[in-house]
Amino acid sequence: MDNGIVRIGRLELRVMDLEQSVNYYTEVIGLEEMGRDAERVYLKAWDEFDHHSIVLQQADSPGMDHVAFKVKDVHALEKLEKKIETFGCTLTRVSRGTRLAEGEAVRFELPTGHFVELYTEIELVGTKTGNLNPAPWPDNLRGIAPHRLDHALLTGNDLETATRFFTEVLGFKQTEQILTVDGEVMIGSFLSTTNKAHDLAFVKGPDKKFHHAGFYVDNWYEVLKAADILSKNKVTVEVTPTRHGITRGQTIYFYDPSGNRNEAFASGYLSYCDFPTITWTEDQIGTGIFYHRRELIESFTKALT
Amino acid sequence: MDNGIVRIGRLELRVMDLEQSVNYYTEVIGLEEMGRDAERVYLKAWDEFDHHSIVLQQADSPGMDHVAFKVKDVHALEKLEKKIETFGCTLTRVSRGTRLAEGEAVRFELPTGHFVELYTEIELVGTKTGNLNPAPWPDNLRGIAPHRLDHALLTGNDLETATRFFTEVLGFKQTEQILTVDGEVMIGSFLSTTNKAHDLAFVKGPDKKFHHAGFYVDNWYEVLKAADILSKNKVTVEVTPTRHGITRGQTIYFYDPSGNRNEAFASGYLSYCDFPTITWTEDQIGTGIFYHRRELIESFTKALT
Amino acid sequence: MDNGIVRIGRLELRVMDLEQSVNYYTEVIGLEEMGRDAERVYLKAWDEFDHHSIVLQQADSPGMDHVAFKVKDVHALEKLEKKIETFGCTLTRVSRGTRLAEGEAVRFELPTGHFVELYTEIELVGTKTGNLNPAPWPDNLRGIAPHRLDHALLTGNDLETATRFFTEVLGFKQTEQILTVDGEVMIGSFLSTTNKAHDLAFVKGPDKKFHHAGFYVDNWYEVLKAADILSKNKVTVEVTPTRHGITRGQTIYFYDPSGNRNEAFASGYLSYCDFPTITWTEDQIGTGIFYHRRELIESFTKALT
Amino acid sequence: MDNGIVRIGRLELRVMDLEQSVNYYTEVIGLEEMGRDAERVYLKAWDEFDHHSIVLQQADSPGMDHVAFKVKDVHALEKLEKKIETFGCTLTRVSRGTRLAEGEAVRFELPTGHFVELYTEIELVGTKTGNLNPAPWPDNLRGIAPHRLDHALLTGNDLETATRFFTEVLGFKQTEQILTVDGEVMIGSFLSTTNKAHDLAFVKGPDKKFHHAGFYVDNWYEVLKAADILSKNKVTVEVTPTRHGITRGQTIYFYDPSGNRNEAFASGYLSYCDFPTITWTEDQIGTGIFYHRRELIESFTKALT
Repeated sequence: MDNGIVRIGRLELRVMDLEQSVNYYTEVIGLEEMGRDAERVYLKAWDEFDHHSIVLQQADSPGMDHVAFKVKDVHALEKLEKKIETFGCTLTRVSRGTRLAEGEAVRFELPTGHFVELYTEIELVGTKTGNLNPAPWPDNLRGIAPHRLDHALLTGNDLETATRFFTEVLGFKQTEQILTVDGEVMIGSFLSTTNKAHDLAFVKGPDKKFHHAGFYVDNWYEVLKAADILSKNKVTVEVTPTRHGITRGQTIYFYDPSGNRNEAFASGYLSYCDFPTITWTEDQIGTGIFYHRRELIESFTKALT
Repeated sequence: MDNGIVRIGRLELRVMDLEQSVNYYTEVIGLEEMGRDAERVYLKAWDEFDHHSIVLQQADSPGMDHVAFKVKDVHALEKLEKKIETFGCTLTRVSRGTRLAEGEAVRFELPTGHFVELYTEIELVGTKTGNLNPAPWPDNLRGIAPHRLDHALLTGNDLETATRFFTEVLGFKQTEQILTVDGEVMIGSFLSTTNKAHDLAFVKGPDKKFHHAGFYVDNWYEVLKAADILSKNKVTVEVTPTRHGITRGQTIYFYDPSGNRNEAFASGYLSYCDFPTITWTEDQIGTGIFYHRRELIESFTKALT
Repeated sequence: MDNGIVRIGRLELRVMDLEQSVNYYTEVIGLEEMGRDAERVYLKAWDEFDHHSIVLQQADSPGMDHVAFKVKDVHALEKLEKKIETFGCTLTRVSRGTRLAEGEAVRFELPTGHFVELYTEIELVGTKTGNLNPAPWPDNLRGIAPHRLDHALLTGNDLETATRFFTEVLGFKQTEQILTVDGEVMIGSFLSTTNKAHDLAFVKGPDKKFHHAGFYVDNWYEVLKAADILSKNKVTVEVTPTRHGITRGQTIYFYDPSGNRNEAFASGYLSYCDFPTITWTEDQIGTGIFYHRRELIESFTKALT
Repeated sequence: MDNGIVRIGRLELRVMDLEQSVNYYTEVIGLEEMGRDAERVYLKAWDEFDHHSIVLQQADSPGMDHVAFKVKDVHALEKLEKKIETFGCTLTRVSRGTRLAEGEAVRFELPTGHFVELYTEIELVGTKTGNLNPAPWPDNLRGIAPHRLDHALLTGNDLETATRFFTEVLGFKQTEQILTVDGEVMIGSFLSTTNKAHDLAFVKGPDKKFHHAGFYVDNWYEVLKAADILSKNKVTVEVTPTRHGITRGQTIYFYDPSGNRNEAFASGYLSYCDFPTITWTEDQIGTGIFYHRRELIESFTKALT
C-alpha cells in the first residue's frame, strides 16, 4: 500500500502476573526476551529484526493497551497525522524513552475505543541468522517459535466507521467483510496494509475489547506442533487445528495465563490493493471462521479481554 | 511499497510449438486457458483474478518477450514514466487491443536489454471460488495447480545498474544480493515491489536472457506433488526438491517444451521496505541458491532462453 | 504376528440409501466401485490390491454387518477355527459366492456381539499403478482418496473378555488400553495383528454397536485436504483435525449419509509383538483420544450405529 | 510374518574416529548415547524401547560389522537356526556380555559375505514418553531426531541367492526387485519381515559392502528439516530431498564422518505377506531409485563402505 504504513509493529498486552506471562511467552510461544523496565517486558519473535513486537505490561486486568503500526518515514507520518485529526481523532505524543528502544510515537483512539500508535523509529536489532549468508532458521528455537507477530483482532460496535477510518484515513485495504444477510450491518472487517490477508481485523462486539493476537507459523505441520506443545504445557486450546474460510489460513486458538487469546496462524493468501473484497454473509459466518466445523463456538465470541 | 507498482502481472513467453506448450501449461502446470488470438494463448492460475498472467507467443526461439507489472493507477504510472525517461530509457506505447483483455501499456528496455511493460488495466475475471462465501480452493484442479505467477529471474551483465534502476527509479526494495568475495561486483540481485521475498531477480550472465518463471505453490508437500507430476509426465526436473538459502523458499526447477525454465516455489519470508538487505558472498553462492547441495550445477547457470 | 491373520480385509456396512451412500463413498471418500450384486455394492481404496475392502449393504438401519480379517492360508485358518471353538464361539460357514469375488469364509460372534469373518480367498485385482515400474500414485484420484481401510472401532460391555479373545485366541497384540483410575475396569482396548498401531479397537459401550471405520491417508496435509473436501461437500465433520494421544495418529471424524462414523487417519507409530502396552487412565481419556482438546465430546461416545 | 523375526534390531557400524562419530550420531542425527564399553558406543533413537539400535565400533576402516534381527522367542530362534544350518551357513554363538545390555546371539555369514545376528534378548529401557498416558513426542529432541532405525541396504554379487536365503530360510517377503531388462539377473532386492516396505535390501555390487543405514522420520517436512540440519552442520548431503519410486518413501542421503552412508526416510507403503512383488526393470532403475531425477548418480553406486 502507498499509505506509508509498513506493518503491525507491536502489541502491548496487559497481563496480571508478569513473571508467569513472561515464562509463557518465552517458553511456550518461544519469543525472546529483549529487555525490561519497571513495569514492562519486551519480546520479539525470531524472524523479526526490530527490537520487540510484544510488550507485556503488568496490570490488574488483561487486554490490549495499544496496537502500533510502523510508518515508513516522518513525512508519511505527518500526512497520516493530518488525516487522522481531520477525521476527528485527538492525537497525543508518546515521547521517546517512554518505552525501551522506541522513538517517539503518536497515539490516538479509534472509533471503537482502542488505542493505536504510529511510529517510525525502533531499535533495529536484527535476527540470530544475521544478514550475511544466513541459515534459514536459527538453532535452539524453543516452543511454538512463530516467525512474527502477524495480526490482531479487536471487537467494536460500529464496524462501518472503523472500516472507513482504516481504509479512507489510514489507507488500508479491506480484504474481507462479514455482513448481515440483508447486507445492512457489517459484523466483521478484515484490513490489510500489506500483501497479507490481514494485519488488523474487527468483529462486532463491545468496544475497547481485545479478541486475539495472531502469531505466524510456517505451515500446517507447525500448527500441529504448536497444538502439541500447548497440550504438553497444559495450555487450554480453545480451537484445535482447523482452517479459516476467511483468509484461508490454518489456525489454532489458545489463551495466555491472563486470558488474552493467542493464535498460531499459517498460510493465508496474498492480497493486493486491487484485491476484490470478499464478502461473507452472516448465515455462513461459521464456515467463514471455522471452515471445517461450520459453526461458531460460544467462547469465541464471548471470551474477550 | 509506495511506488504504486502492485505486482508482477504477466510474463509473455516465446514458445516454439504453441499447442504442445498450451498442453504443458494447462495439463502439467495446471493453468487455465483464458483466450487466444492469432499468435498468442492467454493463461491464468486459479488464484489470480486478472484475465491472464502468462501469455504464450508462437516464435522461432524460446525466451521472454516481456515481463509486465501492474501499476495502481494512471497517476502512479505517469510518475513512473517520468522517472524512467529521466533515467534515459525510451518509452513506447502498447495500445489497447494489442493483446487480449489488456488496456494500454508502456514498454521500455531495461539496462539488461529485457523489455518491461507497466499497465493499469486488464480485465478482471475473478476466480472460480468467487468473492461470496468462497471455498478455500476450487474443485477440479489439474496438474501442479500453482496459486499464481510469483516472480521471474533474468540474466544481465551489469547488475549494479539494473538494481539501481529498480530501486531508485521504480522504487523496488532489494531484499538480497550476491557479491563477489571482494564485495566489488554484484552477481545476483533480488528485488521486491511487494512484501514477498522477490518479484523479479537477476543473476549475472548475458543480457536479454531469461532464466525462469516462478509459480507459487502452497507448501513443501505441494512441491513434492509438483515433482511427482513432472515425473509422471516425463518432464525433465533440473533441480529436485530443495530449499533456497536466498528467500528460504522451497523449490523445484524444470523446463517447458521449448526449454524455458519453470519453478514451483513455496514459502519464503515476508519483506518490508525497511528489511535489511541480505548479502551472500560468491564463495557461498552454492548454499545461497541450493541450500542442501551447497554447490551450483552447471545447467543452472548455462541453460538460458 | 505369527497368528496368520494378515490384515483387516473388509468391513460390511449397513446403509439406508444405497445410491446416496455409493455416491458418498466414491465421490467424497474417493473409493472405487468394483461391482454390485442384488443388495450390495463393493468398493476398494486405490492402494489396495484385493477386490474390495468396503461392502455397502442396503438395510433398514445403519451399522456394521461384519468385519473380516484375511488369513494367510487354510492351515492357519484351521488352527484359528479350533481355538475359536475351544473358546466357545460357534462358527458358521459363509459359502463361496455369497458375496462377489470372495471365497469361503468362517463367521462367528464376538463376546461383544459383533460378527467377525476370517477368510483366505478374495480376487486379487491389483492397483492402477500396477506392479511393473509403478508410479507412486495413480492419476485421477477423487475426493479424500485414502490409501486403504485402516481399522475399525467397536463398542462393547466386557472389554476384558474381548481383549482376551483377540490376544489369546486370535493372537493379536494389545498396543494400548484405557483403564479406570483404580485400574479395575478396561474401558478401551486397541488391538493389532500387524505392525500398525491398531487394526481393531473397542471402547466401552453397548454391545453390537459400531463406532467408526478408519481410512488411512498419507499425512497431516491429507487430513486437512480431507476436512476441506468434507466441508465443500457439506458433510458433517464431528471432530476437526487433531492428534490422538492413543496411536499418536492425526485424525478427523465425520459421518456417512446413514450416520456410520468414518475417520481419515494418518501417521501413528509402528508396533511389534514385544511392544510394551501403553496404558491410559480414565482421568486422561480426553487427552488420550483428542490430544489437543483434552476432553471428550458427547457425540463421540453417544453416536453409535 | 510368521517367521518369528520381529524387526531389524541393530546395526554395528565401524567408525574411524569414535568421538567424532558419537558427536555426529548424537548431535546431528539426534540419537541418545546409552552406554559405552572399551571399544563401542551404544545409541538408540527416541522412539525405540530396546537399549540400543546403533553400535559404533572403533575401527581402522568404515563399514558394517553386522546387522541383527530380533527374534520373538527361543523357540522361533531354534527353528531358524536349523533352517540356516540346513542352507549351509555356519552358525557361531555370541555370548551374553559380549556387548552391553545384550543376551546371547547367533551369528552367521550371508551368501553375500555380510554378518547377520539373530537374538531374542536385549535390555528393555523404554522411551522418555513412557507407557502411562504418554505425550506423542518427548521434549528436548536434538538434530534430525528419527523415530527409529528403519532398514539397511547392502551390496552383493549374487542377489538371487541372497533373496532366496531371506525368503525361503528366514521367511522374509520380497516386496520389490530390480531385474535386468531381459529379466535374467536380479540387481536389486527389497526384503521385509514386517509390514514395512523394507527392513533389509540389496543392490548388486561387491560382496561384504555396506550401502546405507536408513533412519525413519515422520514425514516430508521432517525430511526438509533433516536436510536443513545437515547443511547447517556442513554434513555432505549426497542426495537432496526426493521420493523413491521403490517403496514410494521420501528420502535424503548423507554420510557419517567415516563415510558410512545414512538416510533419513519417511512414508513408504505397508506390505503384507500376500503383497504382489513389484518389479522394476533396469532401464527404469533411475526412476525406481530417484523418482524425480530419473537417473542414478555415480556416487550412489560407487561409494560403499
